[in-house]
Amino acid sequence: MNVNEKLREYAQMTEEALGKYIPSTDCPQKSVIEAARYSLSAGGKRLRPALVMEFCRVCGGEPETALPVACAIEMMHTFSLIHDDLPCMDNDDLRRGKPSCHKAFGEATALLAGDALAIMPFEIIAKAGMEQTIEPVYALKIIQLLAQLAGFEGMIGGQTLDLEYENKQPSVSEILEMYRMKTGALLEFCCKAGCIAAGADESKQDAAGKFGRSIGLAFQITDDILDITADEKTLGKPIGSDKENGKYTYVSAVGIDEARERVRQLTAEAKEFLTEFSETEFLNELANMLAERSN
Amino acid sequence: MNVNEKLREYAQMTEEALGKYIPSTDCPQKSVIEAARYSLSAGGKRLRPALVMEFCRVCGGEPETALPVACAIEMMHTFSLIHDDLPCMDNDDLRRGKPSCHKAFGEATALLAGDALAIMPFEIIAKAGMEQTIEPVYALKIIQLLAQLAGFEGMIGGQTLDLEYENKQPSVSEILEMYRMKTGALLEFCCKAGCIAAGADESKQDAAGKFGRSIGLAFQITDDILDITADEKTLGKPIGSDKENGKYTYVSAVGIDEARERVRQLTAEAKEFLTEFSETEFLNELANMLAERSN
Repeated sequence: MNVNEKLREYAQMTEEALGKYIPSTDCPQKSVIEAARYSLSAGGKRLRPALVMEFCRVCGGEPETALPVACAIEMMHTFSLIHDDLPCMDNDDLRRGKPSCHKAFGEATALLAGDALAIMPFEIIAKAGMEQTIEPVYALKIIQLLAQLAGFEGMIGGQTLDLEYENKQPSVSEILEMYRMKTGALLEFCCKAGCIAAGADESKQDAAGKFGRSIGLAFQITDDILDITADEKTLGKPIGSDKENGKYTYVSAVGIDEARERVRQLTAEAKEFLTEFSETEFLNELANMLAERSN
Repeated sequence: MNVNEKLREYAQMTEEALGKYIPSTDCPQKSVIEAARYSLSAGGKRLRPALVMEFCRVCGGEPETALPVACAIEMMHTFSLIHDDLPCMDNDDLRRGKPSCHKAFGEATALLAGDALAIMPFEIIAKAGMEQTIEPVYALKIIQLLAQLAGFEGMIGGQTLDLEYENKQPSVSEILEMYRMKTGALLEFCCKAGCIAAGADESKQDAAGKFGRSIGLAFQITDDILDITADEKTLGKPIGSDKENGKYTYVSAVGIDEARERVRQLTAEAKEFLTEFSETEFLNELANMLAERSN
């Protein structure tokens, strides 16, 4: 099992499918479509799509069944990055080593591209349900879950806390709750949604969701660590941006050593939840890789 | 039949239900929820919810069946207003006579409130499908249609054209196509979705969609006329903002008299499509009222 090879395989499936879902730029409103394509094609590990398809597979489904959901979550994630980079939010000029969407296309077009990428995921999942590649009631459940975990009480709630905590020093538990919402919620979605698409029972959905939450928290803490320890070229964005933006992070609250220990613990916890499933080699190695990543 | 009384009745149902859908502000991320509540409660005629529920009723359904869809579309509409008012878009300080969302809550919170209001509609409709108050396959169809008519090829596509046309003088047919996408698409959705919720056949869905497109176009042209002829207090926002923002409108292209004539034609056309339905007194009077409105 080569975890990077398998990741690349899932990434390729996702990128091919994404290319087909986004409408052609042969229309008068092409600027917003080009902006969306630009940000969607900026790469990254395509971690979220891989989780969706792999959890579908370990629940006995075909990875392809979950491909529409994989594309949907990659769009939702990309929307959050575009809006996060906007001047009124983190005001980041770079994303994955390239100009951020508003730097390349202007603020208004980036805003609209993000908006469209927040909406299209639901169209794709609904279509998969209507065409019965995913059972209609499962498609509805996946749509409900995505909206819930992306919205006021999930990702967007977490981004709001991120803003709130710029003005007051949050406690360690407040920081962790923010991470659970901001980053953990969509990873929880990925793992659960893959199970739902395969028709898995509640107990499997639940274990998958907990795996997603744990690696999500570990992922965000690793991001904080890398913001201090990585080199800019490897990371693809400026180093020290958290401190510069006056952001309190888990690392600034407890120090790098304790943060590293927490990542190890969370990764070990995450892997415990995989005992509900069989053929979990990829997921186990993926959890390890995420904890040890350098970008 | 008193059209205003009936509109108020539908508005009250919508406002009560909206109040229950939006989460409590008793949580750390309350600012984004307060901002969403603020913009949702800013009023307006609640035209879109009324269309959804009334088309459900004229297709033999209970208006209450379509209430989740009515709330969903009001959220989607409110999201578009919040983002439209942002500094990088129209930069409007006032909306319905009150400070716009970013003026009241700051840009970042307004951005996130809009984002959450673009996502929550899908949660509400999916839940209605899961609870079978709307047939699951109808709920999927409504979700697909909403995302399609709000996204790249609908409302957001139209907003993109609105931006594009600030830099070049569009032709009359380009202006009308922009209006069809920017305003007509969501009104088309309302009328069609009400029919789908009631289980109406394709022919009724189609006629309802055409009614929505026609009144949508008439509505947007009337907006342009009011931007020149209304008084600021009645309209609830500054007069002459189109000209000030360098926007080419249908009125600036063809003049007020021809624009008024076009509104009359479109309204007459819209009413023709109602012959597919019975008990259309409210819809007929609503179409008249919209063409003759002063705000």
